[in-house]
Order: sequence, then structure tokens, then C-alpha cells
Amino acid sequence: MGLIVQKFGGTSVGTIERILRVADRVISYKEAGHQMVVVVSAMGKSTDVLVDMAKQIAPHPSEREMDMLLSTGEQVSIALLTMALQQRGYAAVSLTGWQAGMITESVHGKARIKDIDNQRILRELQQNKIVIVAGFQGITEEGEITTLGRGGSDTTAVALAASLNAEKCEIFTDVAGVYTADPRVVPTAQKLPSISYDEMLELANLGAGVLHPRSVELAKKHQVKLVVRSSFTQEDGTYVEEVATMETGRVVSGVAHDEDIAKITVVGMPDRNGALSRLFNTLAEHQVNVDIIIQSSYDASATNISFTISADDLPKTLSTLEANRAKLQFEKVEHEEGLTKVSIVGAGMVNNPGVAAEMFKQLAEQEISIKMVSTSDIKVSCVIPASQTGLAVRTLHTAFGLDVAEEATVYGV
Amino acid sequence: MGLIVQKFGGTSVGTIERILRVADRVISYKEAGHQMVVVVSAMGKSTDVLVDMAKQIAPHPSEREMDMLLSTGEQVSIALLTMALQQRGYAAVSLTGWQAGMITESVHGKARIKDIDNQRILRELQQNKIVIVAGFQGITEEGEITTLGRGGSDTTAVALAASLNAEKCEIFTDVAGVYTADPRVVPTAQKLPSISYDEMLELANLGAGVLHPRSVELAKKHQVKLVVRSSFTQEDGTYVEEVATMETGRVVSGVAHDEDIAKITVVGMPDRNGALSRLFNTLAEHQVNVDIIIQSSYDASATNISFTISADDLPKTLSTLEANRAKLQFEKVEHEEGLTKVSIVGAGMVNNPGVAAEMFKQLAEQEISIKMVSTSDIKVSCVIPASQTGLAVRTLHTAFGLDVAEEATVYGV
Repeated sequence: MGLIVQKFGGTSVGTIERILRVADRVISYKEAGHQMVVVVSAMGKSTDVLVDMAKQIAPHPSEREMDMLLSTGEQVSIALLTMALQQRGYAAVSLTGWQAGMITESVHGKARIKDIDNQRILRELQQNKIVIVAGFQGITEEGEITTLGRGGSDTTAVALAASLNAEKCEIFTDVAGVYTADPRVVPTAQKLPSISYDEMLELANLGAGVLHPRSVELAKKHQVKLVVRSSFTQEDGTYVEEVATMETGRVVSGVAHDEDIAKITVVGMPDRNGALSRLFNTLAEHQVNVDIIIQSSYDASATNISFTISADDLPKTLSTLEANRAKLQFEKVEHEEGLTKVSIVGAGMVNNPGVAAEMFKQLAEQEISIKMVSTSDIKVSCVIPASQTGLAVRTLHTAFGLDVAEEATVYGV
Repeated sequence: MGLIVQKFGGTSVGTIERILRVADRVISYKEAGHQMVVVVSAMGKSTDVLVDMAKQIAPHPSEREMDMLLSTGEQVSIALLTMALQQRGYAAVSLTGWQAGMITESVHGKARIKDIDNQRILRELQQNKIVIVAGFQGITEEGEITTLGRGGSDTTAVALAASLNAEKCEIFTDVAGVYTADPRVVPTAQKLPSISYDEMLELANLGAGVLHPRSVELAKKHQVKLVVRSSFTQEDGTYVEEVATMETGRVVSGVAHDEDIAKITVVGMPDRNGALSRLFNTLAEHQVNVDIIIQSSYDASATNISFTISADDLPKTLSTLEANRAKLQFEKVEHEEGLTKVSIVGAGMVNNPGVAAEMFKQLAEQEISIKMVSTSDIKVSCVIPASQTGLAVRTLHTAFGLDVAEEATVYGV
């Protein structure tokens, strides 16, 4: 019976009653003989309340002070969960990010973990205590409180699991695992018993919100066995680990989709050295995240460049381009809204040529027009009209054999 | 223009609007050329909300986890006040207890400050920043979060003022200063322009709630010039400092009263060595705070011991005595409720014999019966029936010449 790191998100500790339920679950593992390290987020909407207070004072509060403010949220959760465990007669101790030794970069609002000084945690574990750690937060070498940004508590849990050599890292959330597609769009979507890090990473990046890409990357890097499962039921979740796909025959593991995509085409840019870098550096400086990029020649001296962005960023992107027209020297900018990116992901695609062709054929048969395509070793993404999202996702889900449940692998609690 | 430490209590930062008002006041001092260190408490009722959540989980949560929980309250306040200052264009930085170097004993819930490592604060002040420090909290040498217990934020402010050699320490509160008596009982009560540490200490101990005795003790020890004043008006407050009474001719500075006193008489205890110590040690072990103690002989072998306690502690005290009857070997216990302790305080009493006699005479003339008496160099306390509290306080206030305002001393902002 080894060490297990568990992470409970804000919804899972959103009320006193839920905190008590989390305590019961942690105790069941402790009783089974595990050493337990539990990472918790701030309670439900408490972060929103804090953000709202800050906004009443300053429209753009400093990031250092926001970290000071928001880090109180997890501190409340760890104290309450620890009290619940102690009340049930178990030795437990809460640790803030700095007490747990989560050393981060000197960046506020989205710091990355540099190192974990796990001496304190190990000392508490040796005393047979359940250790409750505040997620999402850390401390710089200068003693400043930092937060890790989106997906921060998942990252805390994975980093601790790596540092402590945990048997596994269980991420408890409000869904029961990783699905072959969004169950709201595809009623036949199946929960995957297991998935590889790379597939999970693609799915996370493609809009499947269960795990933040950062935590998956970290898990892959340190080979931390991840489990995604529901905090409200006892059912098995999805294992994320290196070997998963080796044991299954599937070519495609899931269909992801990301709505609210916009496509921009910059027409007639001079085809000189550095034109592309000038364009995308300008956009990056204005915090525009660009996804798929396609360059097509226009004539001997000019080029057209198309790229996709989140529809939310469209006004900012258009105004940035316009403001830099003199520098970028393009002829005109065209844009298209109401698009979706639909993607198939599967580690098995590497060894199965023709998967992309099959995807295009399936979409064509449904008369779905493909606006852009992007591929990697383990995924194919197509940009299509948003109105055809459901049809596309369901068609691909069926075509690649995902409507039927895969047999569970040997793992399970 | 020197360094000033200010402290704003929970009521003063109870809402966003009030935090903004505190920011304005701090800025007015900064603009006048002062270096500013500002200590704040948790916002209004936020501590109550946290305590309530804890009580839902555990009737007696561990003190370590309560400190972890409650210390978030001040952390929220310091972040918000700092944001408000920054929003108005002033350089400011918030520091938690541990960041501010408030080293305490390894005791939870009521730790005392052992040392202040003020390097960080000095560094921030050198960078011309307004430094906002979380009151009420500290850190042990082992890195545990502690809280200082009742009056903790006042203590933080005074300790910082001592450590930083501040020009003065201003305690902003919901009253305008220290009064000669409680204005709700004595309409002619006067705000004192100044008062000595010893007098303030007696008043604080006697139930005048403006300052906690700990902070006054600390101020006296380090000769920190204290000012008590209103956070809602601009009027001058009361200076608490060593020389105050030397400059005034008054004998009595104030009349204090503490309602809800109960008197216990333990009848017929064996008059052997150690009987008294056994009795009061037993009560102390059960957290009963005893105030006035009077011993009277009974016969050759036995003694009667009377003492006062807070009426709240009466059931606990009676049950503790009953449970230890075998050990203490008393004959019986009598008790009386509905009592008040009324006290006159004045450093001038040392050189004016007959003050106590005058007090007894004044009370006797009003036919107020005196149940117990306790004296020190600078105060006389009488326990009387609670029904006569108002009459007694007003009579003494007039008799000792407190109905007329004293002229302000040379100080003032």
C-alpha cells in the first residue's frame, strides 16, 4: 500500500457537507493502508467572491495583490478539511503552498513550479498524518505568495505526486472520467478506461476540459500515473498513463470539439524574410493566441496567411492588425466567424495511415465543408461550420468505432 | 516627518467603501511626508463567518487549524487595502504576519510575539512604499501560522511601532478616544486628551474596551506613544504615554465599570498550607479567570475564601468546585450574581491619600452597598449590586471632578 495523492476541485469542496464527504473518502483510503496527501482548491464560488471584491476596488488590481487575496481561498479549504478529518479521529495537518515547499518562479498569477522542498510533507507523513495541501499556490525564493493560474490545483497534485514518488495521482472532478466525446453532444460517448499522456494532452488542448494541459504535461514528464474520476460517485475513472494504448487495439480514442473559433486571412503580405514572424510576434505581443496556421502563395512577391483564433479574441485581433498595417504591409484582412474545430485523437494513428483520409471522407459524405486542416502524429483537426458540429462529432464517433464501450483494463481501485 | 504605525480594526475595514476611506486617510499621512506602516484586522464579520464554518465541522476544532483558517481574514484585508492604495497611484505592498517577520511562541490561538524580523518592512519602506501588515497573526520558528488572540491586531501594531522606532502608533477604532467613563452610562463623560500607560492599563483591565491590556503593556514596556482615535471622524483622540499625568492636576482620570460579575464564597476550607494554591490552581486548570480575592478567617482550623469571576463562568466554576470537593475539602459554596465592579483609576492617587475613603463615602451617601473592595496604587474597585451601576458611576464621576473637560495637551495631529 503506497502513497496516493488526491486532488479535489472547488465543486468537490463547495459546501461543508461536501467537505465532510471528501473527508470520508480520504479516510477510506487511509483505512486501506495508504499514505495520503490531499490537494484541495478553494470552495466553490469563494474565488469569485474575492475577485468581485477586488474589482470593486480596482479594475486591474496588481497581480501580486491578487495572489495575496486569492491564495486565502485554498487556505480556508485545507483548514476545514483537516478539521473534518481530526473530528473523525484521524491525525491530519494542513499546509499552505509555502509550508508544503511549493517553490515557484517569481511570476504572479501564472507561476510555474520550479522545485518542491518536500521535507515538511515527509515529516508529517512519517508521523502517520494525512497531509492536506493548498492547491494552486506557491512561494517564490524571495518569500512572495504566487498562484499557478488555470488548472493550478491539478498541477500542484501532479507535481507533489512526482516529488513524493506516489503510486498514483487521483484527480476528483465533477465528471466520471475522460470520454470518447462530449456526452452532451454524443449520447453514445463512452468513458475511456485508459488513455495515454499524449492523447490526453491533445484532448486537453483541443477543448476537453477535464484536465489542464499543464498538469498532463507534467504527469507525462515525470511518468505520474493519473486517474480522473468523479468526486460524487464510486465508479472507476479513466487512467492516464504511458502504456495505455499499447494494450488496446483502437486507432482513435476520442473526438473533441472546440466551438467559437474564428478564422482570419491576411491577404497579400510581402513574401519577404521575416514576414510571418513579424505578423505572429505582433499578435503575441497583444496576447492573441493563434491555433492553426496555413500559408498559401499568392503571387511571386506576396502571400496569404490564414489562422484560427478564439472568437472572443476577434475584435482585439482585427484592431491589432489594423494598427500595425504600416509595419505588416498586407493588402487586406478577411475574417469568418461561427466555426468549430473538430478533432480525432488517437495514439494508434501513428501506425495507421489513411485515418485523416477516412475523416475527410466521413465529413464529405455528410456534406460538411472543411475550411482548414491541421494534423499531428496523433490527431487530425478540421475547421467546419459551427452549425454542423453535432452532426460531425456524432458521425466521426460512430465511424471510428467509439459508440461501443471498450473493456476496462486491469486497473481499478 | 517620521514613521507612523496605524491600526484599523475590523469595523474600520468592514466594507469596500470603508476600506477606500481608510486608504484616503493613510494617503493624507503619506502626503504629509510620513513613512507609513498600516496594520489591519479582518473585515467586520468575516471572522465570525469562518468560525461558524469551523463549528459546523467540529465543535472544538484544533487550535492550529483555527489559526490556519482565521489568519486568512487579515490576508484578505491587507490585499484589498493595498489594491486601493495602488489604484490611487501610491506604491504599496501587503505583508502577511510571516512575511512581516512577526515571530511568535509556538502556541496556537493566543501566541505572544517573541521577536520581529523587520528587514522586509524596512526594505519596502526604503522603496518608498506604504506597508500594509496583517494584524493578529504571526509565525513560529518552526514555520507554523499562529494568531495572537484577543486584542491581537493592537498588539501587532504596538510591537511594530516599537521595532521600527515609530514616532507614534495610532489605533483607529469606533470610539473617539478614551473617556472618563462609559458615555452610555455617564452623559457628561469627557474624552481624555491624554492618559498614562498605567492608568490605561488599569482601565483596560477594568473593562474599558478600547484597548486590550496586552497592547498597553507592550507600549509601556517599549515606551511607544499610543493614540486612540476614531476611524470615522477627524477629531483628536487620546494620547497614551508616560508623562501624561505629570502635566495635569487630576487625581482620578476615569471611572470604569464591569457588569456581569459573580461572587463565590468557599466556606470552611481547612486552613492548611497550600489550600489557597490548591483552590486557585484547580480553577485555573479549568480556565476560570478569577479577579478579586478575599480571605477571611473562620475559626482556628478553617477559612472562608471569596472571589469574583465573570458571570459567564459561574456554571463552570460551580461544577469545577463540586467535582473537586474531595480534594479541596470545603464545607459549602455560596454564590451571588447580579453584581458590578465599579473602579476609579488615577495615577495621581499615589500621592493623594484618602481617595478610597472618599469613594466609599460617596457610595455610602447614595446607599449603595459595597460587597468587596480591591485596591492598587492607582485604582480602587468596589463590587456593588448591578442595579446601582449607573448611580454609582455617575456619582463618582461628578465627585472626582470629571464632568468638566480637561484642556487638551500640546499634542495633536
